Amino acid sequence: MYDRIKRSFEKQGLMKTLNATLLEVEMGIVKICVGFSEGLTQQHGFFHAGVATSIVDSACGYAALTMMAENTEVLTVEFKVNFMKPANTEKLIAIGKVLQAGKKLTVCEGYVYDYTEEKLIAKMTATMISLAKE
Amino acid sequence: MYDRIKRSFEKQGLMKTLNATLLEVEMGIVKICVGFSEGLTQQHGFFHAGVATSIVDSACGYAALTMMAENTEVLTVEFKVNFMKPANTEKLIAIGKVLQAGKKLTVCEGYVYDYTEEKLIAKMTATMISLAKE
Amino acid sequence: MYDRIKRSFEKQGLMKTLNATLLEVEMGIVKICVGFSEGLTQQHGFFHAGVATSIVDSACGYAALTMMAENTEVLTVEFKVNFMKPANTEKLIAIGKVLQAGKKLTVCEGYVYDYTEEKLIAKMTATMISLAKE
Amino acid sequence: MYDRIKRSFEKQGLMKTLNATLLEVEMGIVKICVGFSEGLTQQHGFFHAGVATSIVDSACGYAALTMMAENTEVLTVEFKVNFMKPANTEKLIAIGKVLQAGKKLTVCEGYVYDYTEEKLIAKMTATMISLAKE
Repeated sequence: MYDRIKRSFEKQGLMKTLNATLLEVEMGIVKICVGFSEGLTQQHGFFHAGVATSIVDSACGYAALTMMAENTEVLTVEFKVNFMKPANTEKLIAIGKVLQAGKKLTVCEGYVYDYTEEKLIAKMTATMISLAKE
Repeated sequence: MYDRIKRSFEKQGLMKTLNATLLEVEMGIVKICVGFSEGLTQQHGFFHAGVATSIVDSACGYAALTMMAENTEVLTVEFKVNFMKPANTEKLIAIGKVLQAGKKLTVCEGYVYDYTEEKLIAKMTATMISLAKE
Repeated sequence: MYDRIKRSFEKQGLMKTLNATLLEVEMGIVKICVGFSEGLTQQHGFFHAGVATSIVDSACGYAALTMMAENTEVLTVEFKVNFMKPANTEKLIAIGKVLQAGKKLTVCEGYVYDYTEEKLIAKMTATMISLAKE
Repeated sequence: MYDRIKRSFEKQGLMKTLNATLLEVEMGIVKICVGFSEGLTQQHGFFHAGVATSIVDSACGYAALTMMAENTEVLTVEFKVNFMKPANTEKLIAIGKVLQAGKKLTVCEGYVYDYTEEKLIAKMTATMISLAKE
């Protein structure tokens, strides 16, 4: 399972550009982190909302994928993110968790924490879809 | 107004990393685009949802900012994005539009198109908040 | 098409309870309204957010259904609603519009106006799914 | 605290119309339920999404209110709901929980269960705003 996710993760050019790391893969749970750099900021010098969203979207998508059949792929149907605290931290840690796995659609909850994994910076709810691999 | 947005846009390290361009600034409307590159992809080789989200979040935030008082800043409270078409295009064009400007909260609609500006790839609804500049 | 929607609408017990009326059915567009009464209020005496949401959810679902095959049914996957103005009006008018009709999933935009159909009170984005009729 | 919420709840005409009951009020948590009746259905004879949304919106709003100052009121800024299971149950139980209480904005998570309180039917994330009482 880890290998399946790892191979896909390494194909995501954006994860390389953001310098993101795949930390953990369990059934229904995936953790991805990214360290701070100037190239990831918004105008106040903190992490851009788009960075938090990118890694937690990947974390949710892969969490969903851990529970999908072998010959399938995952795509994001939609997500919603609430930003609760300024992302002024040296590292963002995103955790994607499956809330409900369906045959076609999977609902995930995503959490973005600061480096202590205690301050909740953003919260995502995402709908993922499973597609047959071409 | 353009200068105000431009100065802020240039402080967003992420926009530089994505190689995004501020195309237009009008009262209540901001347009940002980004060209395709390997470094912006998801596992199928198309634009990552996080890239589309990052530029349309910035577009919505700045659209809101065009209607806020001079001494204020804008932050994203939350957004929701529906992904409707695969982002297999050479360029993403994001348009942020103010739907309703309030004293404190502003609701924006964001659209992400392909390079023809005809295929709608993603649709955002965002809530922005205005904060007094420190 | 109108008959198909009308028959289904009349099966929605909630629409009767709210005293809602199916106003219009066009390809991809459905309009539903509800008049004010004490039984539809929140604590400040205006329409409860749940009333606006109920009728615009039905409007979006039926708008999606107008573009689905004859032997299918529609269900709400998820929606998001922004409440922009207090709903202190004598009538709520909800309009559901298909933004993108897919084979399985349809994305709709929903608008809730006051009785003049000019003041935008709430805005919905909804994902609908088409299911084969049992 | 219970009295404050109870008084407000009793002013919500819609809660009476739905025949909803305020079950529990704790700091940051409110529980509301509603029994099944024909008048609360969608076209397949299950609870309408609007009923689930109405009670969980009220539950989230009141959960937020338990953590706001005495002289304030609560309004819904926006919410998003995912519907995960058909609501074919004799009773819906909605639980609203504060995820983060801010000075102005409060983010809540809402859960709608079936009568066993084990099957999760719908999941809400809501942003509430505190307003000074007029």
